[in-house]
Amino acid sequence: MGRTEVVVICGGLGPTHDDLTREALAAATGRPLEPRPELIAALEERFLRLGRTMAASNLRQTQVPAGANPIANPIGTAPGIFLEVAGRLIYALPGVPDELTAMLDSFVLPDLLARGGGPPIVTRTLRTAGVAESELAERIAGVVDRLRGRAGAPRLAILSSVGEVRLTLTAPVGTPEVDSVAAELRALLGPDLYGEGDDTLEGVVSAMLRARQLHLAVAESLTGGMLASRLVGIPGASEVLLAGYVAYSPAAKTRDLGVPPETLEAYGLVSTETAIAMAVGARGRAGAEVGLSTTGEAGPDPAEAPVGRICVGLAWEGGSEAWTAHLGGGRGAIRQRTCTWALDRLRRWLLGSETGEP
Amino acid sequence: MGRTEVVVICGGLGPTHDDLTREALAAATGRPLEPRPELIAALEERFLRLGRTMAASNLRQTQVPAGANPIANPIGTAPGIFLEVAGRLIYALPGVPDELTAMLDSFVLPDLLARGGGPPIVTRTLRTAGVAESELAERIAGVVDRLRGRAGAPRLAILSSVGEVRLTLTAPVGTPEVDSVAAELRALLGPDLYGEGDDTLEGVVSAMLRARQLHLAVAESLTGGMLASRLVGIPGASEVLLAGYVAYSPAAKTRDLGVPPETLEAYGLVSTETAIAMAVGARGRAGAEVGLSTTGEAGPDPAEAPVGRICVGLAWEGGSEAWTAHLGGGRGAIRQRTCTWALDRLRRWLLGSETGEP
Repeated sequence: MGRTEVVVICGGLGPTHDDLTREALAAATGRPLEPRPELIAALEERFLRLGRTMAASNLRQTQVPAGANPIANPIGTAPGIFLEVAGRLIYALPGVPDELTAMLDSFVLPDLLARGGGPPIVTRTLRTAGVAESELAERIAGVVDRLRGRAGAPRLAILSSVGEVRLTLTAPVGTPEVDSVAAELRALLGPDLYGEGDDTLEGVVSAMLRARQLHLAVAESLTGGMLASRLVGIPGASEVLLAGYVAYSPAAKTRDLGVPPETLEAYGLVSTETAIAMAVGARGRAGAEVGLSTTGEAGPDPAEAPVGRICVGLAWEGGSEAWTAHLGGGRGAIRQRTCTWALDRLRRWLLGSETGEP
Repeated sequence: MGRTEVVVICGGLGPTHDDLTREALAAATGRPLEPRPELIAALEERFLRLGRTMAASNLRQTQVPAGANPIANPIGTAPGIFLEVAGRLIYALPGVPDELTAMLDSFVLPDLLARGGGPPIVTRTLRTAGVAESELAERIAGVVDRLRGRAGAPRLAILSSVGEVRLTLTAPVGTPEVDSVAAELRALLGPDLYGEGDDTLEGVVSAMLRARQLHLAVAESLTGGMLASRLVGIPGASEVLLAGYVAYSPAAKTRDLGVPPETLEAYGLVSTETAIAMAVGARGRAGAEVGLSTTGEAGPDPAEAPVGRICVGLAWEGGSEAWTAHLGGGRGAIRQRTCTWALDRLRRWLLGSETGEP
């Protein structure tokens, strides 16, 4: 409060003894905590609806500093607190990520926008998969050099996460160059660009399948359900994903997916042949137009193949294809990257384009 | 560096123009960047091994400030940097979580311990599932009150994440009370305590199944592979998880799991009857001793049942049981909590104990 006009506090609003944000706010602003009858009523109603008994400690969550207003929590029990003190705006929100995000969107950001404040920023996010960060950096080096250090130019950042790389352009609203630079980047990215803004790879692939009225079945070895789970994370998944098979063991690959034991024996569990047989099996069993599979060695010890070697298989009416790659990282990262890579292979097949590399 | 003896920097060591930690370190310490031949050789070897071509921009990662030492990165391309300047220790590590964690464990923490430093802290973490944070807080209120504010007493925190609550006891090494307080908390937690330290619920359940030579098959509707994926995240999963079936659609429930259409019709997709039929079907199909299933409504719109209503089914030789709950949160949190709750139901069944609530 001594150095900024807006304070956003995250966490410490729960019911337990170490949730101290309420007490800290009261102490910092000299305003005593007061119980709010409407919060008590809402909390009792919520527990009743969920069929649970309310512990007395939950009542701590119904206190706010005098003069403060509760911020409604649409998905949890802890309300937020809004307080204006000596020209300072204080927003205290729960630390649970889902709840924090929901309340930022429903209250804090609209409230700040309504109060005016500084010039808003525009951000363009371009999302890629299947291409290395360093390769992208070389491809866009001309744009980077042109913008770098020039006053008034949009800022361009390259951000890498597990299996994906995104470019962000940031500038004050009204910077005319943003649109032209974004268009230039889109042209440079070509089919490596899978989406923009809040798009996800699984959301884009689901929408492409839905638009073509294609249905998908997945068969997973090392990813073990993670690929299906990403697709089910998209609302309306049942229109796209007919079935998923977690076939981590050789026996499951044969029993549930019809992979011939001879294929496993001759080529190994981590092979393009096994990946294709898994995709063909999932597609046939579920009656889907498209089958997608993953197999590979996630470690920590190399059992079936060198750690990080993975294969993705794709099967469709009258054809199949498989790819192999060597991915870095620990067990978790290898599994995540394999899912991203499998989704991206499917996306490129749907695009009719086959240009990326892991 | 002006106010602390140890600086740990996270991120900004990648190959692109906005990875500026190297340049910032050089500017802050007045030491020019120098290429390190052994880093160039290691990077070339790595790209060769992965079968990829190295972009020239990767060479930026081979520069460190004069007098600094690279920190080996066991799983990624960006080495860290260690620098000692005017009695200050500076550790720059990559931002990728896997790599950061690996290098903290392999270099930074051992280095700090070897240098002595302040008195080390001991932490005991007790992990629970299936019990609400507020209920736990009431149960341990006596311990909390006894420790609170007393000089030399261990600090006790309650931390809630999606579906789990953990207690942490923190104190300087040698505080004798830590062991007795931990024992007291264990007794209070009883069967709600699933593990300690770095234990995970899926790891504990996998170990219990393995110890009894029981095998598992899972059938998932709303969780859509997330439950299987958590189990496959544990190395050696093939000894425990025989198969997973993602049966998000009614057709898949009948085709792959043998759920009678009459059951779906009479009781609905989100019902204990459907959950049991799914668990029975997965168990039978995979030839597993135990079947575990999830079904429920994750939203965002209530299609099959009120958003947040979920059912978990369990089937074993000669018996079955199902539970229903109403969980809060968004689509992602409901799915995560359902997985945690299903694993915890299985754990309690394995314990022969049935006392928790969601």
